[in-house]
Amino acid sequence: MPENRQLHFNLFLMGVGHHEAAWRHPRTDPALAADIGHFQNLARQAEAASFDSVFLADGVEARSDGGWGLISHFEPFTLLTALAVVTERIGLIGTVSTGFSEPYNLARQFASLDHISHGRAGWNIVTSAGDRAAQNFGREANQEHAVRYRRADEFLEVATALWDSWEDGALLLDRATGAFADPGRVHEIDYAGEHFSVRGPLNIPRSPQGHPLLVQAGSSDNGRAFAARWAEAVFTAQQTLAEGQAFYADLKRQAAAYGRDPGLLKVLPGVVPVIGSTEAEARRLDTELDELINPARAISVLSGVLGVDLTDHPLDAPLPPLPPVTEINGAKSRFELVRDLAERDRLTLRQLVGRLGGGRGHQVVVGTPEQVADHIGTWFAEGAADGFNIMPPILPDGLTDFVEQVLPILRKRGLFREGYTGRTLREHYGLPRPAGRRSAAA
Amino acid sequence: MPENRQLHFNLFLMGVGHHEAAWRHPRTDPALAADIGHFQNLARQAEAASFDSVFLADGVEARSDGGWGLISHFEPFTLLTALAVVTERIGLIGTVSTGFSEPYNLARQFASLDHISHGRAGWNIVTSAGDRAAQNFGREANQEHAVRYRRADEFLEVATALWDSWEDGALLLDRATGAFADPGRVHEIDYAGEHFSVRGPLNIPRSPQGHPLLVQAGSSDNGRAFAARWAEAVFTAQQTLAEGQAFYADLKRQAAAYGRDPGLLKVLPGVVPVIGSTEAEARRLDTELDELINPARAISVLSGVLGVDLTDHPLDAPLPPLPPVTEINGAKSRFELVRDLAERDRLTLRQLVGRLGGGRGHQVVVGTPEQVADHIGTWFAEGAADGFNIMPPILPDGLTDFVEQVLPILRKRGLFREGYTGRTLREHYGLPRPAGRRSAAA
Repeated sequence: MPENRQLHFNLFLMGVGHHEAAWRHPRTDPALAADIGHFQNLARQAEAASFDSVFLADGVEARSDGGWGLISHFEPFTLLTALAVVTERIGLIGTVSTGFSEPYNLARQFASLDHISHGRAGWNIVTSAGDRAAQNFGREANQEHAVRYRRADEFLEVATALWDSWEDGALLLDRATGAFADPGRVHEIDYAGEHFSVRGPLNIPRSPQGHPLLVQAGSSDNGRAFAARWAEAVFTAQQTLAEGQAFYADLKRQAAAYGRDPGLLKVLPGVVPVIGSTEAEARRLDTELDELINPARAISVLSGVLGVDLTDHPLDAPLPPLPPVTEINGAKSRFELVRDLAERDRLTLRQLVGRLGGGRGHQVVVGTPEQVADHIGTWFAEGAADGFNIMPPILPDGLTDFVEQVLPILRKRGLFREGYTGRTLREHYGLPRPAGRRSAAA
Repeated sequence: MPENRQLHFNLFLMGVGHHEAAWRHPRTDPALAADIGHFQNLARQAEAASFDSVFLADGVEARSDGGWGLISHFEPFTLLTALAVVTERIGLIGTVSTGFSEPYNLARQFASLDHISHGRAGWNIVTSAGDRAAQNFGREANQEHAVRYRRADEFLEVATALWDSWEDGALLLDRATGAFADPGRVHEIDYAGEHFSVRGPLNIPRSPQGHPLLVQAGSSDNGRAFAARWAEAVFTAQQTLAEGQAFYADLKRQAAAYGRDPGLLKVLPGVVPVIGSTEAEARRLDTELDELINPARAISVLSGVLGVDLTDHPLDAPLPPLPPVTEINGAKSRFELVRDLAERDRLTLRQLVGRLGGGRGHQVVVGTPEQVADHIGTWFAEGAADGFNIMPPILPDGLTDFVEQVLPILRKRGLFREGYTGRTLREHYGLPRPAGRRSAAA
């Protein structure tokens, strides 16, 4: 590892906090989850602290029974654009599924966001699990896991070809000759595959980053293979240092097997920092939040993740037997994470709901700023992380605590920059701008 | 007509001007067409003049041969959001095709834009003509005109149901009880039609306007019937007062036949105001612009509109025989408009290109501010318009001229307001907020 290796931080946006019950805590204002100004303030605050990026999770479904899906409010492209125009440096990463969009529309929207933000767009690529999403798009059931990933591979082949369909410099704007663009540098892509047939070219010139930063967040076998081929950053969820190291090593190895430089694939585990000036104070906040969880709602969500109806299961009993992961057609890695957590720590349903309430299966670190900084420093030094996906339990307070109390310690240790050194999202993560296949071939 | 009937104005955004050769004129800076700040400035300027709205045309195709499609730059949702966050009152209307999007995605993006803008979103509904767009979405050829409109009808049925799937007030945010939303007021829509099957609900609460303002711009028989059923504002292109009156009367009659109040369907013809302090000065600007047209590029575009290859047709001869409109599967009303213009005024190819260069078939009014105001006042008083879609030949100068020189005359005549009287786009146009079918049924 180079001496000056630096941490990368992404702020994972989530309403008024990542804790399931954040909106009920007296330190939040739940109305802010529907206030675009709240998200703009968070992005500005993260930018002032030179975070690499902000990130928005997403799904294309809601449930009418009060499940998590209801919490969604803004749609990614509109939200991220609203952040782009009130910031100058921070990256803007949005989740969009390859399952329910057309590559032409999606490639165009990311290119437009990249132009508007002057090179700060990133795409967190998901394939969308579960049947409910599919039922909003004309299908009774979702496609099988492996089919979804084959479609995603094709989707990326089309999208990257479209982003490269205009060579850099193809826009001439030559008033004297009347040449608006150079037809010799704008190319049809003529893609014909199993899932997509797209002629091209895209109707927007090549964007500042060439391609948006490509991010991935699934840890299943298919998900890892996909990440090794395409992703430049991976958001992940491992609970223990050993698991984190194993995942990190495996992913970098797979990327190398694709002929890629493993250093150009950044791994960022999610972490929920519950911060107090003393450990007791941090634990108090953690307990206050857990006590505000609505068990019925949390169990409804958990039932969906595990594929087992737990609605009438006794709260103080261990989990019933779970189906094998091969029968899960949803988010396989989320299923395994929850199952392993329950088995390893022998949790009752009530205890499991409390653990998951903090960060939906991501690490929850409860402690003083030093303890949180130590945790981050250890994972970074021990080969489990290139940075972190920061998931404050309450917002904006949890971000303020992290920025004001944890970052100064990491800076003092030489692990995090004092300010931005680049202008684009790719520059923040130390990743190159793709040359453009047509430009390179010319 | 009521005494205090007021004009409505929409600013039709288009790069650095609507004239085909605007970007080559010394009074424009062509680089601004790719500068989001330019569009933000135009929106702010139109808002300062209390325009009802700004409007973005759109297509989902580009041509690699230098045709018009190349000019597109920003995508509608990202562009309009970038305008929303730097303005407070002006409406934001985006064109999106029903041909190549999923209703769930589109309904959600408009709802999100309506939330972010606090009630200023509008949707110009198009069905997308031509095969090139279809070829970016997996089809060899576009669907037949009538099929496209049937799909559009279904699309609107789904989208309006999704916008109503959350009743007003369904978001409870009740901290004491832990009730985030009221499941009894969030509804699945269970739509099953020929083109779409959508379960719902939408994953975003009902937006400030309930539905975005629905706008339509096609004048074919199918297009008029669609507008009469769904549209609240129509952007149109008639060349003569008599044609404008006939269109206006027909559309209002058809709306009434649907049981709608015809006063709640606003008709806004497009007009290109070429303004000079004297008529001679205006004519000079008009001539300067026409002389900058690149004939090869303009003829390439015209060939597409007419379905006839005019590339090698003599510039100073009249048009060759054209196919019957029944064979045109593209934009039928645009075809008829161009054909009628060429026939009526017996234009050569060169003359036709010059006429169309000004406003792609919309009226071009060349004159002093008084002459432009007279023209607008006549159409408004004589039953041909409720307002106008303003298409400045050059931007931003042409907008500045209109705002500073024409609007004061119309205000002095009592035809246009001094400032906004409402906050939402619907309020500007004097249109009601839809009650929401589920809320009304409850």
